[in-house]
Amino acid sequence: MTIKSILPASLLLLGAGTLLAADEPTEYEKFEGSAEYVKFALNNLWILISAALVFLMHLGFASLESGLCQRKNTVNILFKNSFIIAMGVITYFVIGFNTHYPSEWLIDGVLAIGGPAGAEPGTAANFTSEYNPGYTYWADFIFQAMFAATAATIVSGAVAERVKLPSFLIFATVLVAIAYPIAGSWHWGTGFLSRLGGGDAAFYDFAGSTVVHAFGGFAALACVIVLGPRKGKYTKSGLKPILPSNLPLATIGAFLLFLGWFGFNGGSVLSADAQGVSTVFVTTALAACAGALACIATSWIVLKKPDLSMALNGFLAGLVGITAGADAISPSMSLVAGGVAGVLVVFSILFFDKIKIDDPVGAISVHGVCGIWGTLAVAFFGGANFTSQVIGILAVCTFAFVFSFALFYVIKLVMGVRVDEAEEAEGLDVAEHGVPAYNP
Amino acid sequence: MTIKSILPASLLLLGAGTLLAADEPTEYEKFEGSAEYVKFALNNLWILISAALVFLMHLGFASLESGLCQRKNTVNILFKNSFIIAMGVITYFVIGFNTHYPSEWLIDGVLAIGGPAGAEPGTAANFTSEYNPGYTYWADFIFQAMFAATAATIVSGAVAERVKLPSFLIFATVLVAIAYPIAGSWHWGTGFLSRLGGGDAAFYDFAGSTVVHAFGGFAALACVIVLGPRKGKYTKSGLKPILPSNLPLATIGAFLLFLGWFGFNGGSVLSADAQGVSTVFVTTALAACAGALACIATSWIVLKKPDLSMALNGFLAGLVGITAGADAISPSMSLVAGGVAGVLVVFSILFFDKIKIDDPVGAISVHGVCGIWGTLAVAFFGGANFTSQVIGILAVCTFAFVFSFALFYVIKLVMGVRVDEAEEAEGLDVAEHGVPAYNP
Amino acid sequence: MTIKSILPASLLLLGAGTLLAADEPTEYEKFEGSAEYVKFALNNLWILISAALVFLMHLGFASLESGLCQRKNTVNILFKNSFIIAMGVITYFVIGFNTHYPSEWLIDGVLAIGGPAGAEPGTAANFTSEYNPGYTYWADFIFQAMFAATAATIVSGAVAERVKLPSFLIFATVLVAIAYPIAGSWHWGTGFLSRLGGGDAAFYDFAGSTVVHAFGGFAALACVIVLGPRKGKYTKSGLKPILPSNLPLATIGAFLLFLGWFGFNGGSVLSADAQGVSTVFVTTALAACAGALACIATSWIVLKKPDLSMALNGFLAGLVGITAGADAISPSMSLVAGGVAGVLVVFSILFFDKIKIDDPVGAISVHGVCGIWGTLAVAFFGGANFTSQVIGILAVCTFAFVFSFALFYVIKLVMGVRVDEAEEAEGLDVAEHGVPAYNP
Repeated sequence: MTIKSILPASLLLLGAGTLLAADEPTEYEKFEGSAEYVKFALNNLWILISAALVFLMHLGFASLESGLCQRKNTVNILFKNSFIIAMGVITYFVIGFNTHYPSEWLIDGVLAIGGPAGAEPGTAANFTSEYNPGYTYWADFIFQAMFAATAATIVSGAVAERVKLPSFLIFATVLVAIAYPIAGSWHWGTGFLSRLGGGDAAFYDFAGSTVVHAFGGFAALACVIVLGPRKGKYTKSGLKPILPSNLPLATIGAFLLFLGWFGFNGGSVLSADAQGVSTVFVTTALAACAGALACIATSWIVLKKPDLSMALNGFLAGLVGITAGADAISPSMSLVAGGVAGVLVVFSILFFDKIKIDDPVGAISVHGVCGIWGTLAVAFFGGANFTSQVIGILAVCTFAFVFSFALFYVIKLVMGVRVDEAEEAEGLDVAEHGVPAYNP
Repeated sequence: MTIKSILPASLLLLGAGTLLAADEPTEYEKFEGSAEYVKFALNNLWILISAALVFLMHLGFASLESGLCQRKNTVNILFKNSFIIAMGVITYFVIGFNTHYPSEWLIDGVLAIGGPAGAEPGTAANFTSEYNPGYTYWADFIFQAMFAATAATIVSGAVAERVKLPSFLIFATVLVAIAYPIAGSWHWGTGFLSRLGGGDAAFYDFAGSTVVHAFGGFAALACVIVLGPRKGKYTKSGLKPILPSNLPLATIGAFLLFLGWFGFNGGSVLSADAQGVSTVFVTTALAACAGALACIATSWIVLKKPDLSMALNGFLAGLVGITAGADAISPSMSLVAGGVAGVLVVFSILFFDKIKIDDPVGAISVHGVCGIWGTLAVAFFGGANFTSQVIGILAVCTFAFVFSFALFYVIKLVMGVRVDEAEEAEGLDVAEHGVPAYNP
Repeated sequence: MTIKSILPASLLLLGAGTLLAADEPTEYEKFEGSAEYVKFALNNLWILISAALVFLMHLGFASLESGLCQRKNTVNILFKNSFIIAMGVITYFVIGFNTHYPSEWLIDGVLAIGGPAGAEPGTAANFTSEYNPGYTYWADFIFQAMFAATAATIVSGAVAERVKLPSFLIFATVLVAIAYPIAGSWHWGTGFLSRLGGGDAAFYDFAGSTVVHAFGGFAALACVIVLGPRKGKYTKSGLKPILPSNLPLATIGAFLLFLGWFGFNGGSVLSADAQGVSTVFVTTALAACAGALACIATSWIVLKKPDLSMALNGFLAGLVGITAGADAISPSMSLVAGGVAGVLVVFSILFFDKIKIDDPVGAISVHGVCGIWGTLAVAFFGGANFTSQVIGILAVCTFAFVFSFALFYVIKLVMGVRVDEAEEAEGLDVAEHGVPAYNP
């Protein structure tokens, strides 16, 4: 393929010096010169730009997590997150995409295992509107691929600072390659959640409050239970807070996540439709900002100080809280959806600390708890069926929890999941990677 | 609203397996399938992408400001900036948008106070080209909302390291909710500045050198005068420089601001028009780069060393300097507009230090002084009316200064605006937020 | 030019309250209302967005380089990189663009020296499809301008921590203003590489594995040879590793480079063509991820530890490795192209250290070695002519090496290229810039 062949023929004709094509165009050229073609290219471009924005969220997660954890575990966190995005895109290519969007089911609506993406390389269907009138096969693939690793990234934050690296890498790979696309197929791949009430009362989860975020949050919860808390956090004399090592880095992370969410939610419109994308940008931003303000106010009252980490988690809580209904909830109601999430996240973080579930970055609260809230919020404010929402939440969260618990427990039996005490005390950077994150 | 209803009907028709729709389309479907519709969707998408880019500028400001200030005040700065964007978007929703673009005036051309955005929820006008042939109501809203908090962010930099947090949050909220949209309405909301010379000699300020940047700069100046300089900066033995705590962070901030400016200026074209947006990208980039080179050269000569902070301020000076005329000044002249700003900013920073106006990040110089220069530059190089430019500058800067001075002074009387000396010495992070920014 | 005049007339007509224009449109308005016009605007916008993404790569380079080098040279690195982008855009405006894409040759196909860009200001050709049916003159300019400084940035990384600032700035300016566009003109400016085999066996380098990256890599190699290694790295008792100062910063840099590459490669499609851009996004991402995984595995085996710096270089190796063939190599084969690059980069970095070529960030390996590999990969997997690829690589790398060696050697004779030992030991930040990067 050359650059020339990429340029639509009608453009080349235009280049001949006249604004109106002189030669009789072929059938395909007629499409290329048509408004439908340009709409197709525009929609497709937006999906691709959204994919790039979602990619950036992985830098956001890496920054947020390493900023909120201790200095001595920074390299470990950055390494995990670098691995996760690389592994996530490639496993999605090898197995995930066709598991997520099955062409045939092993168990109808429940289980499918797909082969590599792009099964028919070189066919027009991979590149043109024959695959989908809104975008190409590969645009669809890359957008979804960027989402795929998110589940593992959420877990990464919760198990940080004491998980054994090889064990985590194996866990993350299986989770992303197998479990995430199976759960997703129930909703997005025409599985049983999309068929509730004969399709009329289908589970509604626009961009994945449940099938991405709560899935990750409950996988994280399972892993933290298997793994146990960091040494020295819950002592006989009470909770000993572990301070974040780098709050500017955490702030960069949270803002990049906010930015990336415009692609996460905005791209989930699956077109550049003016009405759809505009709505989603507005509800997404309003919910994020309401989440931050509500979280600032709540934590100021409860913790008696203006807490930056909480403010950042408030943005994320609001964002997770609107993800299921970003297209269905009105701007005004998105303030409520986000605001409630911002309040919830404070109490949830305090609650999990009370029951000694040690989650260094608050991932279970932000993604798990607010993911559930966001999914219910579409029933309250966006017209979704409440029962179906509950069924979807229960199905996905139970599956994420059980699958993760079983897998992580098996890994624990086989090779261990936790570094030894000396290593934890020294920090994983020097112990596992042989280099501290910050040096002279 | 479901995903299906967002997908244009014509796309769904296409999906039936043929490239040409078979059924007789409705009137609306005809629009959807037309080139006009695709142009509308394209313009709208660019406004939205620009909004995302302007959002990123708030991370730029947060990074720049915390990088240029002292380590002990980092959390405070990041907290302020997180609050500002959340508050800015929400107040713009509640009151700002309809004050900025009034439908009716209390005092014709001078004063209007609007209600919440989206007054007629659910009407087609909020989402379709009935509102505006170029973009949707909500795209307009979110793009402008991202701008709104900028004024407060500029002030934040100038008052950093000694301002009392609650006092600043109150000040910033009133400034962004009330004063900024009022000043903006004079120019963008068909107010008196847009009517100068019966509209033929209107004040010209493309993306806001005056109504955004100089507005913020003069609000900052007023606050700094009320607040006073940081302890220990201006001593009997002369100026004692306070070193920036994290120059990589400041550099990240300046580059993100440069990036975001492509949306700030580029989105202000208010369409994806090829001629308009291309011009604006080029003049914006050339002015920024000329500003940096001019500032590097000037500061190297004057300060006798290659100064990184000055180089970063040079980019920003050039950017502010082209903002008023990015669409009206030729590429060659944009080098002059940006270059002059880059020289100006050095002398301005030195000048304000000389008169003991303590501005930790140079916000008054970058935004105030270069904002004025940029507005005049459109008269010199872009055909704007010189007198109108001067009137606009005077009106907006005076209003920003007087409003801010009065408001901040009242807050000072009521609750104080400055932390006590012990707190300032210890740093606001530990004193107000209970946590340092960097920990082991 | 006013905002009004930028808005296409057909949009204004639409605003009159009807969806169909009532008045008889002019010839130009007919174009504006046509699908061809919208396609033109869409393509143009994607070029501009890509330019913004490539701009962000300069922040990526600055972050990566300063993160991988020592703390005491951080300001120097950030200053160099700030200068480079400012200088690069402006020299490209003054001379580079018309040297890169010559209208006439001094030596046919080999040498041209151009004048300033936009030779005919104000003509329609600068803004409309008269210049090019796919995008405007100025969109073309700004996209290419953002690329131009890359060559110097690559060199910057290799010579870091001991190069004399003014000498480097002079070298970088001449390299970017003269040598880079000359080498590029051979391929992209219809020079001799584009004519190999009468054009039928032309050198193929889609987005610049050779003409951007290997060019930079071989320029870097020449400079490092002239400059010599950092003191204390290669000792009698063997190699003494110099630790990276800030790995979160380096990670931010690598991820931003990955993100920017979607514009670097994606924008090189030179249109928003759905098939072209989708392909390029997928091959780019898959190669980057395969590069990272291969590099992680290889370095884990060879260095016996999970190495974060290597993981980051693995992403970049994969990206450089796919750049020449991102549009021509299939998704599956892009995994091979990227994966091989990820393996290569490990051995290359070890090799250059063995022969005492001191390259603090691995720029010669990532850009030089993987640039060559990527160019050959298009012959293996993308149908390019092997002989032409070899000729192109030899021509460009030889020219980059010889030009850089000669220029840098002359500068060495005239003013020296290396700081003195005391300055190197103290660090360039305090010695040359008078301020450390991190302060209390």
